[in-house]
Amino acid sequence: MPKPNVREQIVVAGVETLHRRGFNGCGVQDITDAAGVPKGSFYNHFESKEALGVAALDRYWQNAGDQLRTLNDETVPPLDRLRTYFESLATTMAGQGYTRGCLIGNFSIELADQSRLVRDRLTVILAAWTRAIESCIREAQRTGAVRSTLDAGALATVLLSAWQGTVMRVKVDKDHAAIRQFMAVVFTDILG
Amino acid sequence: MPKPNVREQIVVAGVETLHRRGFNGCGVQDITDAAGVPKGSFYNHFESKEALGVAALDRYWQNAGDQLRTLNDETVPPLDRLRTYFESLATTMAGQGYTRGCLIGNFSIELADQSRLVRDRLTVILAAWTRAIESCIREAQRTGAVRSTLDAGALATVLLSAWQGTVMRVKVDKDHAAIRQFMAVVFTDILG
Repeated sequence: MPKPNVREQIVVAGVETLHRRGFNGCGVQDITDAAGVPKGSFYNHFESKEALGVAALDRYWQNAGDQLRTLNDETVPPLDRLRTYFESLATTMAGQGYTRGCLIGNFSIELADQSRLVRDRLTVILAAWTRAIESCIREAQRTGAVRSTLDAGALATVLLSAWQGTVMRVKVDKDHAAIRQFMAVVFTDILG
Repeated sequence: MPKPNVREQIVVAGVETLHRRGFNGCGVQDITDAAGVPKGSFYNHFESKEALGVAALDRYWQNAGDQLRTLNDETVPPLDRLRTYFESLATTMAGQGYTRGCLIGNFSIELADQSRLVRDRLTVILAAWTRAIESCIREAQRTGAVRSTLDAGALATVLLSAWQGTVMRVKVDKDHAAIRQFMAVVFTDILG
């Protein structure tokens, strides 16, 4: 019976290494090295690198939960929650010097055509993420803070896409200009 | 002196293979195999796989020029040009069964932190792409088709980001829903 903390060490190192170097930019050995465990132990815990990819994605999404719960904080007006949420994501990106990007976006680009397992998890995660944004927009519409003529579902999808594209852009530009423009256009021109 | 058409065959196969499999998802051998040239010939033409990455990116951007020139067609009202342009990109994506995505977006995610050479090219390409969209929005503002209160530069950046994020999303979802929502939100809610 393998020690459970070895699996945990591999998952934590997997999130870190896959986020930093991309799925195809590192090997199992890089991940077990980062975890400080023997390479041979990997396959006691994961059937494949792909299976670790799914576990890392789940962990990343789970870690993102605290920020995401900002969107449900009923003590704050819904539009303020949405703004705080994106500001908090922006702070995370700045803290990483606009490297890495979002693991969910990175895997979408790199693995959607390469791994059915990962793609299926991405579908579920992106749908849940969209719904969380959509609920917040709907609440803002009920309070009159956002025009009720807007289709909350479509808008949520486009805001999430715009955010993912913005994360991609700042990864190239290595400055926050595109994030500043995202915040201005979304909160002044679209929702304002 | 190497035959010039070998270089050309490698560039064409490079665009195709790097687009389909990602930069780190294929090797030089895969590219020379696809080009039908000996692996040894690669380094007569390119200093590194990275150098081919830049050449493939330049070729992809050059190939995108015909679609991009839609944005400058002064016989068509500017907002119609912008819509036709995104519809034409959407048709390309659909024709590829929502696989592959955009090579510019893919390289932004995969290589911005890995290759300074590629990142520098991406910066130039994304800036030029943004300017082309911005000019079209400015013209639409001059004709009164788009509110002049919108910041054309910021809006162009956000539209391009939203498009890149949409391409990422349909790669996961394998259907056109996110593209339909992008078109509706952009042309009805934002520019409408």
